[in-house]
Amino acid sequence: MKPDYVRIFDTSLRDGEQAPGASMTSAEKLEVARALARLGVDVIEAGFPAASPDDLAAVQAISAEVGQQSVPGRPQAAPPIICGLARCTRNDIEAAWQGVKGARHPRIHTFLATSDIHLKHKLRLTRPEMIARAVEMVGFARSLCADVEFSPEDAGRSDPQFLYEVLAAVIKAGATTLNIPDTVGYTMPDEFGALIAGIIQHTPGARDVTISVHCHDDLGLAVANSLAGLRAGARQAEVTINGIGERAGNASLEELVMVLRTRGEKLGLQTGVDATQLCRVSRLVSRSTSYPVPPNKAIVGANAFAHESGIHQDGMIKNAQTYEIMRPEDVGAAQTMLVLGKHSGRNAFSKRLAELGYALEGDALLKAFNEFKKLADRKKEVHDADLIALASDERTTVPELWALETLQVVCGTTGLPTATVRLRDPDGKTHVHAAIGTGPVDACYKAIDGIVKVPVELLEFGISAVTEGIDALAEATVRVRHDAQRASHGHGADTDIVVASAKAYIASLNHVLSRQSSGRAQHPHEVSP
Amino acid sequence: MKPDYVRIFDTSLRDGEQAPGASMTSAEKLEVARALARLGVDVIEAGFPAASPDDLAAVQAISAEVGQQSVPGRPQAAPPIICGLARCTRNDIEAAWQGVKGARHPRIHTFLATSDIHLKHKLRLTRPEMIARAVEMVGFARSLCADVEFSPEDAGRSDPQFLYEVLAAVIKAGATTLNIPDTVGYTMPDEFGALIAGIIQHTPGARDVTISVHCHDDLGLAVANSLAGLRAGARQAEVTINGIGERAGNASLEELVMVLRTRGEKLGLQTGVDATQLCRVSRLVSRSTSYPVPPNKAIVGANAFAHESGIHQDGMIKNAQTYEIMRPEDVGAAQTMLVLGKHSGRNAFSKRLAELGYALEGDALLKAFNEFKKLADRKKEVHDADLIALASDERTTVPELWALETLQVVCGTTGLPTATVRLRDPDGKTHVHAAIGTGPVDACYKAIDGIVKVPVELLEFGISAVTEGIDALAEATVRVRHDAQRASHGHGADTDIVVASAKAYIASLNHVLSRQSSGRAQHPHEVSP
Repeated sequence: MKPDYVRIFDTSLRDGEQAPGASMTSAEKLEVARALARLGVDVIEAGFPAASPDDLAAVQAISAEVGQQSVPGRPQAAPPIICGLARCTRNDIEAAWQGVKGARHPRIHTFLATSDIHLKHKLRLTRPEMIARAVEMVGFARSLCADVEFSPEDAGRSDPQFLYEVLAAVIKAGATTLNIPDTVGYTMPDEFGALIAGIIQHTPGARDVTISVHCHDDLGLAVANSLAGLRAGARQAEVTINGIGERAGNASLEELVMVLRTRGEKLGLQTGVDATQLCRVSRLVSRSTSYPVPPNKAIVGANAFAHESGIHQDGMIKNAQTYEIMRPEDVGAAQTMLVLGKHSGRNAFSKRLAELGYALEGDALLKAFNEFKKLADRKKEVHDADLIALASDERTTVPELWALETLQVVCGTTGLPTATVRLRDPDGKTHVHAAIGTGPVDACYKAIDGIVKVPVELLEFGISAVTEGIDALAEATVRVRHDAQRASHGHGADTDIVVASAKAYIASLNHVLSRQSSGRAQHPHEVSP
Repeated sequence: MKPDYVRIFDTSLRDGEQAPGASMTSAEKLEVARALARLGVDVIEAGFPAASPDDLAAVQAISAEVGQQSVPGRPQAAPPIICGLARCTRNDIEAAWQGVKGARHPRIHTFLATSDIHLKHKLRLTRPEMIARAVEMVGFARSLCADVEFSPEDAGRSDPQFLYEVLAAVIKAGATTLNIPDTVGYTMPDEFGALIAGIIQHTPGARDVTISVHCHDDLGLAVANSLAGLRAGARQAEVTINGIGERAGNASLEELVMVLRTRGEKLGLQTGVDATQLCRVSRLVSRSTSYPVPPNKAIVGANAFAHESGIHQDGMIKNAQTYEIMRPEDVGAAQTMLVLGKHSGRNAFSKRLAELGYALEGDALLKAFNEFKKLADRKKEVHDADLIALASDERTTVPELWALETLQVVCGTTGLPTATVRLRDPDGKTHVHAAIGTGPVDACYKAIDGIVKVPVELLEFGISAVTEGIDALAEATVRVRHDAQRASHGHGADTDIVVASAKAYIASLNHVLSRQSSGRAQHPHEVSP
């Protein structure tokens, strides 16, 4: 590997999924992993296999498919490394190995905190006990897998001398990558750069392994801290798409990659990421997790390349370089506005969807195509964004246990909003219920509740018109909580916002029910660097 | 002023308002300015008076009220400096002075680009011509106002030697603050820090004036760059609430302030901001501009203090310091969930609204209170977020030219969605129209279009349930474009999302019409550092 090459380690599926309500189904995770492989990331942290049977199954599925195939469109590229997270326990490490061993390049990532505040309050370990456990477990992981990463959790607040001692010991025990997390997003860029430089200088063996950075954005400095670490000698960066993750999230993949690309000459660093895929992957992760991308988000926000004021537009027309340091097409932001009409066939539809990053097949494709034809009848122009909404809705990521057959609503400023729904249950039997509510959606949801009877708390409800024009296809997103620990979400797309809302709510209930039936456990009481 | 004091210069009302579709009415700007004063910022850049008569009027209104009053709750504090932006022309500088002269502490901020790319492609000026114009115009501004700020636009890409020469000349001409913008968000923190250090070291007179930083977030480094500039000796930071601004926006006020607060001991820097107001002001700006705050936004995002994974929750219970470097209450994020019920009186309602940062009076208060009583009848619990939605809806910030009288809708999966609306025109006459559409909102909007007849393009449409529970009060936000240059937005709140959508659309049309009638000009072909 070239000395200026920075490995991009994506943890959207692990640290990203730990964001409240961002949990994805196994099928959604697999789809994101495919997109990450196409994007050209070097390592995909696919999950935390010891957390639940579902997490394990998702990591196994990703290892078997994404971890084995060369990347579509990049036939020379090897498959990415597939990584599984494990606490420093034999059980976790075994589960991680079960998860990743099907990949061509598997990695086990284990972690243990080194800061006094975590040792004392959380782990209740002395410093020597901590080192002994880390060495034993890294050795055990190495006995299973040639590629082992170790993270000293909360390194940013750890005593540097103790950190060097721990790291030297785990290198001896067989760790091949040392990941340095700023778990609480507390450090300043110069501090974090100095921490990495100190580790490289003072840890025996550090120059023979890869040093990695993992920064959180609590103070808005995650990208700057990651960059400071890379400039100090780290050659792997742990990042997430759209910067999702615990609390304020992780360093954003798209921002860090574009810093390295835009300023590569000065920095002397490069990555293997195909930046033209960034907007596509950003949209997919946003939809899969129900986390919106704000318009003013760097690189992938809707306004990242928009110029409102006269002076900027004037400058842009004279010379785009006056106000832009990268081109929209560099990050895949260029849009073909009008793509398909009512006379387009299934092949054109399927091909355009694939170009947009949605590979639908079989029934799901047929269903989406039928929806597209109906939409094309009602709407003059069908845009890419319409197709994405349709495809997101029709991806078969959650089993359709309950399905909406018909819905009828009366509402307005006078009278009582009333909804009548007919649902088909998992056995194909239909049920009808009518209810009144404070509005049409409330009435709908009460009617659905009258049939499905899964008690949930509505955490978030949002609707957006994804395309221009008042006849837009609306996408509804619902996030509900069934138990104290985990949230579920659902999407629905329709030109009728009430129908879209009903579909989204039913999808979220199906999400809850499918999780219950697959026996998904709560995340255990220790999870993340 | 203490040597470690950093002036916070908020430009949400100027650079922030330049974000596509973020434009605010004069009344909205005044309300944001009041909130910024309560927050304790040192300088409010209130607008760009030469841009239009509306911009001038807004800056004058802010100068007369916010620029004169001591801050409520902080009786000892002086009013903030009120600043107006001006290009380096006599006309702009005169307009800026007309805008700010009513404030107790007025400031004129003028700018001219210094980078070769801007000089050559945009301004078509030689370097000596640029210096001559800057000196002449700073001198003219100084003849009107004792406090003059000068910005060399695109300083981040300017030749440092030329920059020192320009800056020395404008100091001699009377500039009291030199603001160094990284206009295109291109620099790395070490570069930007070195730029500021170089300016302080090599510019004659630089130590006698205030050096300021103004960083954009195109590569996600705006906060880190601002911080690097402050550590190199700058003592003013230009920032915006929620990081709004051109393209990917400006450095976010809340992030920079919390960096300085959380790490103040190490950095040796402090501000006068009352951080407990941050979440409140963030919400107000989000609503006034229709720019959402994503859940994973640092400091003010809904998840900034949320802990999903078991390990984090476990650590938090044992000791909050394990995963949090600041407390939710430090930034005003603590919420009183249940505040009012159907038996609450108008005083309690008005008092709670004021605590939430919404000072309603007279008819607006009465109207909001009536809506609250209706809501309390339909909904078991009325939360702070409901009150905020109501207050946002009822703020009399846009004249109610057209008003919704009644709306009646039939929709669902079968039949044609049909809406009948009755609107009251500005003269009090009622109009009725029915229309069918692809969904209930489309039908509504077509029916409204059939009456109001202002051709607009729908740019964005969103609905969120702002409170927990399926019987939530929904808030609709619509952004429309009437001409090529400027977008307008509107809000509506109701328990019925179709009614909320109709209200929002009518509000956006009123916004367009009120702007037309007040003769608001397009922004001229030069606007911003």
